[in-house]
Amino acid sequence: MNIALLGFGTIGSGVYELINLNKGKFASNFTDLEARKSSPVITKVLERDTTKDLGDDVGRIVTDPREILEDDSIGLVIALMGGMDFEYKMIKDCLKAGKHVVTANKAVISEYFQELLTLAEENGVVLRYEASVGGGIPIIGSLKEEMKINRVTEIKGILNGTTNFILSKMTEEGADFGETLAMAQSIGFAEADPTADVEGYDVSRKLSILSSMAYEGIIKDEDIYKRGITDIRAVDIEMLTSMGYVVKYLGHSILEEKNNVYSTVEPVLFKEASIMSNVNSEFNIISITGDIIGELQFYGKGAGKDATANAVVGDALYILNIVGDQNLPKPLRLNRKLNKVGTAIFKGKYYLRANLNDKEMLNQVLGAVETIAERKTVIVNDNRAYVVTSVIAANDFNMMAEKLKETVPEIFYARIYE
Amino acid sequence: MNIALLGFGTIGSGVYELINLNKGKFASNFTDLEARKSSPVITKVLERDTTKDLGDDVGRIVTDPREILEDDSIGLVIALMGGMDFEYKMIKDCLKAGKHVVTANKAVISEYFQELLTLAEENGVVLRYEASVGGGIPIIGSLKEEMKINRVTEIKGILNGTTNFILSKMTEEGADFGETLAMAQSIGFAEADPTADVEGYDVSRKLSILSSMAYEGIIKDEDIYKRGITDIRAVDIEMLTSMGYVVKYLGHSILEEKNNVYSTVEPVLFKEASIMSNVNSEFNIISITGDIIGELQFYGKGAGKDATANAVVGDALYILNIVGDQNLPKPLRLNRKLNKVGTAIFKGKYYLRANLNDKEMLNQVLGAVETIAERKTVIVNDNRAYVVTSVIAANDFNMMAEKLKETVPEIFYARIYE
Repeated sequence: MNIALLGFGTIGSGVYELINLNKGKFASNFTDLEARKSSPVITKVLERDTTKDLGDDVGRIVTDPREILEDDSIGLVIALMGGMDFEYKMIKDCLKAGKHVVTANKAVISEYFQELLTLAEENGVVLRYEASVGGGIPIIGSLKEEMKINRVTEIKGILNGTTNFILSKMTEEGADFGETLAMAQSIGFAEADPTADVEGYDVSRKLSILSSMAYEGIIKDEDIYKRGITDIRAVDIEMLTSMGYVVKYLGHSILEEKNNVYSTVEPVLFKEASIMSNVNSEFNIISITGDIIGELQFYGKGAGKDATANAVVGDALYILNIVGDQNLPKPLRLNRKLNKVGTAIFKGKYYLRANLNDKEMLNQVLGAVETIAERKTVIVNDNRAYVVTSVIAANDFNMMAEKLKETVPEIFYARIYE
Repeated sequence: MNIALLGFGTIGSGVYELINLNKGKFASNFTDLEARKSSPVITKVLERDTTKDLGDDVGRIVTDPREILEDDSIGLVIALMGGMDFEYKMIKDCLKAGKHVVTANKAVISEYFQELLTLAEENGVVLRYEASVGGGIPIIGSLKEEMKINRVTEIKGILNGTTNFILSKMTEEGADFGETLAMAQSIGFAEADPTADVEGYDVSRKLSILSSMAYEGIIKDEDIYKRGITDIRAVDIEMLTSMGYVVKYLGHSILEEKNNVYSTVEPVLFKEASIMSNVNSEFNIISITGDIIGELQFYGKGAGKDATANAVVGDALYILNIVGDQNLPKPLRLNRKLNKVGTAIFKGKYYLRANLNDKEMLNQVLGAVETIAERKTVIVNDNRAYVVTSVIAANDFNMMAEKLKETVPEIFYARIYE
């Protein structure tokens, strides 16, 4: 069976190196070293830039999708172009053409999950998407395994390498969000348009994939509450450090009785001495909780060429290894009717920092907090108020804080994890 | 295919509940709920105590091994008796009889790894042992997966629930080892004879299994340097806490050039703000490093009925799902000649506490340290000396400290992880 690759960017070239260029141990899964030629190879790469050097003569660049769709020697397509519409169409066309598909495209999987799974099943092929969540962390496969025995009821994690890099740097250097983002952009760790990362769309897509799988129904990106990390300032880092907290960007969903699903993507504060607080830079961590196994956590590189290519090639190997087997994997079912009921289940103490124009505004902020929570700590310094509240429901605090934003010039708030 | 269970202790009864008594989702892997009866069940349980209540009428207790070995309806045997000689013989006899085997017995796997793998291959059956390391953590399967693409060169982890529970309690309560062990024994978290746990035999067996797999050669229990945790006192906990360190019991092995393998099981000090320091109580964590994927960490319950039974039943499901497939898993090869070269690669600052009879002994301790390292910190208090050294090779420090023990009445020392 031959393999086609869609896209020869960073991850694509990493995959090509692992499969065609003898980096890593891919070939050892098929043959003795002497018989290297019988292991599957990438023979075609769909790529607009025909001047790219693949590094060997086994594969060649093609620009017309039909060269892949109509090539019967190609049984497996690895879709790594990114973006939405074209890759979605290509994945559909490949499945319809009876080709197995591996992709890292979280946007496509999150948006068209049910449709693509159904298409794969109808055409007797397999769709795999390990690298769409957590980069090199083997979370998709592990979640499927645990679901064979467990009812999974909770998923949480640090799911975005860019924002975790930014928050780690801010914590390390006591820096502002804006300057740290600019630095991350300058070294290629953040996109020119960072919206998807810093406003939570990337995390919520990943959380939607994991939640849909775990709870066996569709949770879409837009069903998930999200709040970005752009309001965090150096003064927050300084205050939180002095209080013993570290801010992390957490995706979190919980399945409760009656198929109620609560989900959120937001900055959350962890005690300095905790596992989550010590997941730094481009590393991610994902926690799943099952009724038999309890909590499992998986930690690794959430981004990067080699780690992500490793996950992609692992999927490819899985498919290459089951061709001809009588026991194909049981298709995932996403047909449970889930109720997306917001963030009502989350609660905790809250940290709030408000920049004050005058004394009047301090009274306004403290008054607003007092309508819903006890103030446990109040520090006023340099025209800023820092408040830590008693335990309070997330919904109540969020509503109060968003209302405050209408008059107070600058606010940052985050729940303390407990 | 029917299943037989060897042993109906804690884990055995947990496995029985998952497979036969509809706890968890095991049955959903085979049938619609209406057709429950077609899923595999445990029909025989080998157990000396015939008065035990299995909880259903599907399985029955047998006392003669031949009732299982000679029963052709039994295709899979789950070996959970523990101990060494009898379970070893049973596993061998089952493999020879053409039955797949799942076991949690780390002692048997660690000691007879190569022989049992060969026996399984010769008889066309599968041997699985996920629960032998890390309880409910899916480390064996994950390691195998990563090895398809990666050369794994390092393994480290907190691998023993009993000692991690004891160390966590000691740290939490500033308690001595002796009293904490007694408490753990009283609530069933430590055995009446705790030697295998507190002297490192349990950890080194698990590390031997992981290292043998990862480095593709045999590393035995006795090839691994080990030092117990019995010397740790409340005064150490107090001093280490004040310095910002947490003591953990770490198994650690490294593969270097020329097939040199370094390995150690010993108490190691981690900064309070680190992932390892925050793995508490019965939880375990295992880190593997591959040349493509980088570092992956797996966290979960290292012991306990349900979590361990989950891992055992996961193995059983794996086997039940591949019966009849044309692509059986590639057998593990353990035929690389590895050189077991001790602990020479490990180095770090060292913490040493010595109880002193007199001023003369203080000079003796400081003199001994100075022959091999710079003293960075020395605190003398209440007839005890606490020393933190400069970075030094583990071999040098261990030799110096063991020699000191000949004259100094009580010593504890541990490397600071870096």
